[in-house]
Amino acid sequence: MAEAANQPAPITREDYAARMARAGRAALDAGLAGLVVTPGPDLTHLCGYHDVTPSERLTALVITPDRPPRLLVPGLERANAANAVGAGAVELVSWTDGDDPYEIAGTLLDPRGRYGIADSAWALHLLALRRARPDTTYDSLTAVLPMLRAVKDAHEVRRLAAAGAAADAVYEEISTARFAGRRELDIAADLADLLRAHGHGQVDFTIVGSGPNGASPHHEAGERVIEDGDMVVLDFGGLKDGYGSDTTRTVHVGEATPEERRVHDVVREAQQAAFEAVRPGVACQEIDRVARRIITEAGYGEYFIHRVGHGIGVTTHEPPYLVEGEHLPLVPGMCFSIEPGIYLRGRFGVRIEDIVTCTETGGRRLNNTSHALRYVD
Amino acid sequence: MAEAANQPAPITREDYAARMARAGRAALDAGLAGLVVTPGPDLTHLCGYHDVTPSERLTALVITPDRPPRLLVPGLERANAANAVGAGAVELVSWTDGDDPYEIAGTLLDPRGRYGIADSAWALHLLALRRARPDTTYDSLTAVLPMLRAVKDAHEVRRLAAAGAAADAVYEEISTARFAGRRELDIAADLADLLRAHGHGQVDFTIVGSGPNGASPHHEAGERVIEDGDMVVLDFGGLKDGYGSDTTRTVHVGEATPEERRVHDVVREAQQAAFEAVRPGVACQEIDRVARRIITEAGYGEYFIHRVGHGIGVTTHEPPYLVEGEHLPLVPGMCFSIEPGIYLRGRFGVRIEDIVTCTETGGRRLNNTSHALRYVD
Repeated sequence: MAEAANQPAPITREDYAARMARAGRAALDAGLAGLVVTPGPDLTHLCGYHDVTPSERLTALVITPDRPPRLLVPGLERANAANAVGAGAVELVSWTDGDDPYEIAGTLLDPRGRYGIADSAWALHLLALRRARPDTTYDSLTAVLPMLRAVKDAHEVRRLAAAGAAADAVYEEISTARFAGRRELDIAADLADLLRAHGHGQVDFTIVGSGPNGASPHHEAGERVIEDGDMVVLDFGGLKDGYGSDTTRTVHVGEATPEERRVHDVVREAQQAAFEAVRPGVACQEIDRVARRIITEAGYGEYFIHRVGHGIGVTTHEPPYLVEGEHLPLVPGMCFSIEPGIYLRGRFGVRIEDIVTCTETGGRRLNNTSHALRYVD
Repeated sequence: MAEAANQPAPITREDYAARMARAGRAALDAGLAGLVVTPGPDLTHLCGYHDVTPSERLTALVITPDRPPRLLVPGLERANAANAVGAGAVELVSWTDGDDPYEIAGTLLDPRGRYGIADSAWALHLLALRRARPDTTYDSLTAVLPMLRAVKDAHEVRRLAAAGAAADAVYEEISTARFAGRRELDIAADLADLLRAHGHGQVDFTIVGSGPNGASPHHEAGERVIEDGDMVVLDFGGLKDGYGSDTTRTVHVGEATPEERRVHDVVREAQQAAFEAVRPGVACQEIDRVARRIITEAGYGEYFIHRVGHGIGVTTHEPPYLVEGEHLPLVPGMCFSIEPGIYLRGRFGVRIEDIVTCTETGGRRLNNTSHALRYVD
């Protein structure tokens, strides 16, 4: 497994400092007093720090355009935070159990400032910050700075490509496994093992939707025993070297019926057309529309029950969202899934998903396994 | 492993219905219009549903005192939600990508109501709910209903006791492992394997703080090779049958110095005294004070840098918090950690932690391995 042996280029303190400086400028441009970033993907992206167990104890990176970033951490996490690669580029401020962390956070904020706050910040923290500083106001980062993490730099695209190649290798291997007579849970366990074997440090999901279960897009793999004649949706991913993979292929045990083949062909055509529509300046919603048009014209529009895609980066699910109503234009460096599907309740489902990055000249797939309906044993 | 073979009594639809009804009454008593519960421990506790990947797509259980609970879910999660044990006791409402889920959630809310919202609800959702219904107001569940999950029923105490017994078995086994010459990461991997072998479906943390790393309470196990003469803090836990374990013991490789033994004795005495102080009606902060007094009188007060404990249930970390300023009285059925520690920067740390439940007559430990300083190879 060459991809597991290759160490990716490190993300340095200077890289993190540059990301935080860029975020500060973006905040200024958006008319914000600054950003409040609690543990989660934004914090990981901006300074390389993720605390061991996200918790009710307040940890918050405060970025303002006018001064170096400050990272407020619980005292007992200080040593961990100081070890983060980006820690050298932030001023560490700590609080101790029994202190009021929101009062201390308040001293880092402009008392009348408007802030962007991490989407996944706990309501507990947001409400307490507003109680400590009633004249501060907040918007979610996705609402005010939708581009903060949406455009990946070359480092990040390389890591996403490596994660995609690893997921592709997993698909090639699972295709050779025995399906008939085994439970969905067994295939899901194989997928998790393969993802780890191919360098994934974290497995996020291993969806195995067989037969009628495939009609539930996020079906949780269960006790159902896979049978000859089943369509099986395989959707799996996680993090490799801190960046995400997420790919879906639909396989078939034994011979497929003409209808199954037709539904698969429609999804494949929709995925291909949506991929070909990718280029800078096209609105996110347009990619959804292209796929939906093909599925609708084939008579399956009502069975395509989710958006066509989502961004990917330090998480497997993040902005931008490729959904009706999202007018954000594609920009070179954006990385996202294209994953149309058709779900026939009580019968079967089909989904085909690749991660795609937008380049100056169009889309480039980060998953490259065949889209043909593959027959498994 | 007897504890892995025993299936715990199931939590039934009726149990979940009763929990939701009780939550509705508690909301009424607290003067709230209701509760808004997004994915996380409160949702798991109240209706047995946890979505596959918590995400930016809004899922919310709305509990109001006057009508049956409603669970708003993304359409593509509907089938999963309907499979949850407690789903029969809720009305499912779904939304589709492209809809505005906050508008739909708004129709479930009293437009001028005051709601308790799950602590870990995403700021994204809270801000969008407030935009959709500007006259609704929110407080965190911990602030308004601190007892919602704090008092465990007999089902829950049994599961916590079983998780504790499994963690105890892990400690007994890891004590026989070789420490000297191996990395912290290797011991951490052993702990994770043992937790899984003893029935844990989820491993939350495996802290291995050797030598000077033990002085960082939440040290992330790393590359450091453990040596003869090291004190090693082992703090591990996760979920077994949906309920948490969390225990800490500090072991020593080879002979300990008189100072190391003394520090360990002080922590042990503090843990014992805090345990003996547990009885109904005592304020949470008093347990912290009892432990802190002993450590302070021994001259180490400034090195006990965290609160003495936290609740445990469907998570390994939840209210109530045993910390200065927490006046909540202990109630029979509460389950929490008691985990004093002393951290000498650059040198070593010691922590001893048991999960304890408050009974009518005092504390009962759910961890029962020896507190003596154990010598390992």
